[in-house]
Amino acid sequence: MPDDRETEREASNSRNRRSFLKAAVAGGLAAGAGPALAQDKATPAALAKSNPRNLPPRVPRWSKVLGDGVEAKPYGTPSKFEAHVVRRDVEWLTASRQSSVNFTPLADLDGIITPNGLCFERHHGGAAEINPADHRLMIHGLVDKPLLFTMEDLKRFPRTNRIHFLECAANSGMEWRGAQLNGCQFTHGMVHNVMYTGVMLKDVLNEAGLKPDARWLLVEGADSAGMNRSLPLEKALGDCMLAFKMNGEALRTEQGYPLRLVVPGWEGNLWVKWLRRIEAGDQPWLAREETSKYTDLLAHGRSRRFTFVMDAKSIVTGPAPEAPLRHKGRNVLTGLAWSGRGRITRVDVTLDGGRNWQEAGIDGLVLDRSLTRFYVDFDWQGQELLIQSRAHDETGYVQPTKAELRKVRGVNSVYHNNGIQTWLVRANGETENVEIS
Amino acid sequence: MPDDRETEREASNSRNRRSFLKAAVAGGLAAGAGPALAQDKATPAALAKSNPRNLPPRVPRWSKVLGDGVEAKPYGTPSKFEAHVVRRDVEWLTASRQSSVNFTPLADLDGIITPNGLCFERHHGGAAEINPADHRLMIHGLVDKPLLFTMEDLKRFPRTNRIHFLECAANSGMEWRGAQLNGCQFTHGMVHNVMYTGVMLKDVLNEAGLKPDARWLLVEGADSAGMNRSLPLEKALGDCMLAFKMNGEALRTEQGYPLRLVVPGWEGNLWVKWLRRIEAGDQPWLAREETSKYTDLLAHGRSRRFTFVMDAKSIVTGPAPEAPLRHKGRNVLTGLAWSGRGRITRVDVTLDGGRNWQEAGIDGLVLDRSLTRFYVDFDWQGQELLIQSRAHDETGYVQPTKAELRKVRGVNSVYHNNGIQTWLVRANGETENVEIS
Repeated sequence: MPDDRETEREASNSRNRRSFLKAAVAGGLAAGAGPALAQDKATPAALAKSNPRNLPPRVPRWSKVLGDGVEAKPYGTPSKFEAHVVRRDVEWLTASRQSSVNFTPLADLDGIITPNGLCFERHHGGAAEINPADHRLMIHGLVDKPLLFTMEDLKRFPRTNRIHFLECAANSGMEWRGAQLNGCQFTHGMVHNVMYTGVMLKDVLNEAGLKPDARWLLVEGADSAGMNRSLPLEKALGDCMLAFKMNGEALRTEQGYPLRLVVPGWEGNLWVKWLRRIEAGDQPWLAREETSKYTDLLAHGRSRRFTFVMDAKSIVTGPAPEAPLRHKGRNVLTGLAWSGRGRITRVDVTLDGGRNWQEAGIDGLVLDRSLTRFYVDFDWQGQELLIQSRAHDETGYVQPTKAELRKVRGVNSVYHNNGIQTWLVRANGETENVEIS
Repeated sequence: MPDDRETEREASNSRNRRSFLKAAVAGGLAAGAGPALAQDKATPAALAKSNPRNLPPRVPRWSKVLGDGVEAKPYGTPSKFEAHVVRRDVEWLTASRQSSVNFTPLADLDGIITPNGLCFERHHGGAAEINPADHRLMIHGLVDKPLLFTMEDLKRFPRTNRIHFLECAANSGMEWRGAQLNGCQFTHGMVHNVMYTGVMLKDVLNEAGLKPDARWLLVEGADSAGMNRSLPLEKALGDCMLAFKMNGEALRTEQGYPLRLVVPGWEGNLWVKWLRRIEAGDQPWLAREETSKYTDLLAHGRSRRFTFVMDAKSIVTGPAPEAPLRHKGRNVLTGLAWSGRGRITRVDVTLDGGRNWQEAGIDGLVLDRSLTRFYVDFDWQGQELLIQSRAHDETGYVQPTKAELRKVRGVNSVYHNNGIQTWLVRANGETENVEIS
């Protein structure tokens, strides 16, 4: 590749380009928006600092050399200039193969689809790597006919496609005791949203035939944790899916390849990955992951049994600690809202800590139990901001404050924290995780 | 990693697993569906042949070892067992850096979202690799105020999200003269469908202010081809977007990072990648790529000027040459339909070369100018099939046969072939590209 000095030579391959350059030099192009603030030297934007040799009226280097052809990447990956957009873990939290978690980089994303490579992970025994030809799903217990399915068998049932969010019950869990993690990736990044393709669980169960006294299912993964949970039969026969594809392609290894359970609107722990076994029974199993873990320990010291549904929640992903304000004048505030009980009907945003609220614009698809994107276009003149968002869902539920949640729940729990998040934007645009009473 | 012999040792970490194994061995689990046909030795499925040591009632190897933790892949990639799911080129067609194309592996996908790593590519001078800090969008010509935008500037306009298909005008082009390419990846794989995030082109144009005599725009890329096309102003002020994200994350390099034009429903060549320059004028430019290329040469030897809209089209992606029928009994036929004029309202499918048609089930989202997924559940007893699909859109347009198209167009053109495709399924399940009169 030639170096940037090439950009100083005259471009000669286009009448149009030359006529533009003349116009640009003669006319003195105006900048499209207000002046940039100083960039933080540690940010990716600063690392990717402009090279004047590639700026107009010069023809940039890449317009004068052949780029890569299609043979470069049979399966594409992101630009090297996006290398900072990755899932991240928090070392002191659970970064071991026995128990590990990483987080979706929400501040770098937009729209409602999470790309497969950035969907957060939570493993209790690492990600099982399975040859799909060797994978089997077993159905037994209170059924007329125990069955064993290959992946090929399952793909021959009628298929369906649904976009749903998956949120870990522990998302925002560290924040029960106050503002701790400085970044929406860490406070709210245990959520993702993809289109699943699969078959309805009820169709597969009907082939086995449920006995009249069946009330619950045990669903179990093929990972080394043998992750298992109890699922009420009513939910299983409702909207649960056996998914083999996400966003069009096969499930990723870390999302349960070749088969995962989809439990729309319910806590992520129930969406068993590497799904291997379903047993029908007449009562819940009270497995480890629904007794010693994934229960809500209340203020008085007793636990609440089963909190399946993820209530309405929202988060502003920009500005955010990872996405400070850089420019005075016109700015876009954006975020995500979701509810395990249905569609999002409204999102309110405040810029002044709750004194004034405005309704955010919801853009794009508003789907049942899916991430929903909202925006507020606003003008910023360097004043401090206290930003919050508040989601409403179609059941009439309104996202509560953290104080309201603590009144009911205390601070003993790490699960099911859907309280309103606050970001403080300072005069220099830097943004912090704070709490206001 | 321990080898498969470990699977012969007794699993001892779960009451539930043991009780299942007892039930499985004692009860003699039934298979979930009919017997498998012999697998083609060359297929990925055969390469991934089952290892009996991992099959029930044995506990598979991966249930007994810790899997990878989250640190393995900060940006995830597909399972090694999906290594065959890639974009492919056709060497004799255009596999050079000067002019290259590859194809989306439609037969391996489901739902309506194309994952970013599998979106087909078409380059006229390779993929430009651009540091977004150095990228500028220029707007000039018949405007009140020529403007120069950084990426940061553009991201501060009001944002929007849309799911749209992008189809190359030359998709299915080799088939004008008869059935040639044996696989839906090659006959129909120059199409993809993603959610774009960006800003409306009209908002950015309004900032420059269009002069009253402006009627057309020249849109130009920063690649070495300086790819440029003329765009009628009416379309530009309607639904065109300047996109910076696809499926949630930044555009991929090969899809125009950091900025691409989105021209919903119109031929892919107009969706200029690495968008660098917009010039307003009073007439079309008649650039190379809209005169010597991307025009329809008709039967009488004259060319039709500008065929912007991609008419309704559909393709069965399974069964297909790459996805033969493997099993008698229950099977799923699936495919995609789309229209540049609006929503798909109906898809008909025939299994017997057009003697009988049935309406396919449309599943998932039915969006304006988006790929739309259809299914037909059918029973196969080894008879030969002649499979076709026929799309209808909301304007009342019905996808034509190739014979009908040739009556109007002749066979001189390579562009805008939306004729009905036929697959022949033989008694052994193998599937071929054929034409029937």
